[in-house]
Amino acid sequence: MPELDLRRQVLADNAVAAEALRQRFAASRTLVVNLISSPGSGKTTLLEATARELAGRLSLAAVEGDIATERDAERLRRVGLPAHQILTGGACHLDARQVARALGEAAFPPHDVLFIENVGNLVCPTSYDLGEHFKVVLLSVTEGDDKPFKYPGIFSRAAVTVISKVDLLPHVAFDLEAVREQVAVLNPEAELLLTSAVTGEGVQRWCSLLAERRAALGG
Amino acid sequence: MPELDLRRQVLADNAVAAEALRQRFAASRTLVVNLISSPGSGKTTLLEATARELAGRLSLAAVEGDIATERDAERLRRVGLPAHQILTGGACHLDARQVARALGEAAFPPHDVLFIENVGNLVCPTSYDLGEHFKVVLLSVTEGDDKPFKYPGIFSRAAVTVISKVDLLPHVAFDLEAVREQVAVLNPEAELLLTSAVTGEGVQRWCSLLAERRAALGG
Repeated sequence: MPELDLRRQVLADNAVAAEALRQRFAASRTLVVNLISSPGSGKTTLLEATARELAGRLSLAAVEGDIATERDAERLRRVGLPAHQILTGGACHLDARQVARALGEAAFPPHDVLFIENVGNLVCPTSYDLGEHFKVVLLSVTEGDDKPFKYPGIFSRAAVTVISKVDLLPHVAFDLEAVREQVAVLNPEAELLLTSAVTGEGVQRWCSLLAERRAALGG
Repeated sequence: MPELDLRRQVLADNAVAAEALRQRFAASRTLVVNLISSPGSGKTTLLEATARELAGRLSLAAVEGDIATERDAERLRRVGLPAHQILTGGACHLDARQVARALGEAAFPPHDVLFIENVGNLVCPTSYDLGEHFKVVLLSVTEGDDKPFKYPGIFSRAAVTVISKVDLLPHVAFDLEAVREQVAVLNPEAELLLTSAVTGEGVQRWCSLLAERRAALGG
């Protein structure tokens, strides 16, 4: 089978598994968020802050995708967020079957919101539907303001763009308006949030967004 | 053909093309460096500083890999570094055939050092030999000190680890010794350099390393 046909087949198989996940999430009224970014943009740190902010209001769980190490799942468990680590070996993204298997193994207590923290990579995770309600892309201000147009796939597909580490804005050259304009071109519907794990900026707004979207599922 | 066999075939085809590149580079005594990092770790910025520092001492050229946009090649041309942009479309890494084609199209003037700036990605570019003399991995201090063990493939294969943006160390939690220890475990032979494009720290040492390795090729 030539490479392109094989890729189509892999994505078609993934779509079937993603649809099964979507039905499962709909039945349990679980809001599912697929977090995608470069390595080190602050996905796990945002989830730590989210767990603290939403404690007692919404119940959370997380599936963590990494090439190697259990570090991220351990970090989340330390803040009371049940987390299951998927080790992909060499693979540069999660797929829907891995997520289904992880949910079977994790046996999470009932939860309102499931976070799927993808492998740190702005490219590969973009094409793989994990049955989520929406994708979130994180871009830290230290990565530069040229990234949306350089990685248009994820910025056009993410319902929410989180600009993270805004506490570092005074120390780096980062044109926030340029990023806003690129995101508006790629995805006019996208919400753009600014966050800082250091100052706490934006965390409440992010959590309100999650609470509203979870409430919209009813139940 | 099952997925794993196809991947083996793709890598075998790449190895053939990489070997042809290696012979070509040996014949022209061109030192070839394959730069790999997350998006926004400072690969292009390091090359800009390198062009300024080495002006009049070594002649340089660069092949730039990106999903989209010609921005990086344009940045390098502005500092007098002949650069050719490869747009990979969706692909998350460069392969040896793309590099061969780019060299044909670019028709660079004779040069001592060729930089191949890979697509911003810590995972996919790791397995693809581009006929280079050595790989360099960049890790900016804002990405966190857990990255070598989370992305062991590239840190074990890179002859040089560049810790970039060290001017931001006072503003972020980054344990340099922890990184040193991880790199030492993964690759005891690796050289570790600290750089800052803002203060210029480490740029001379990096350029000396390039000059020494180029001199070792003779000619």
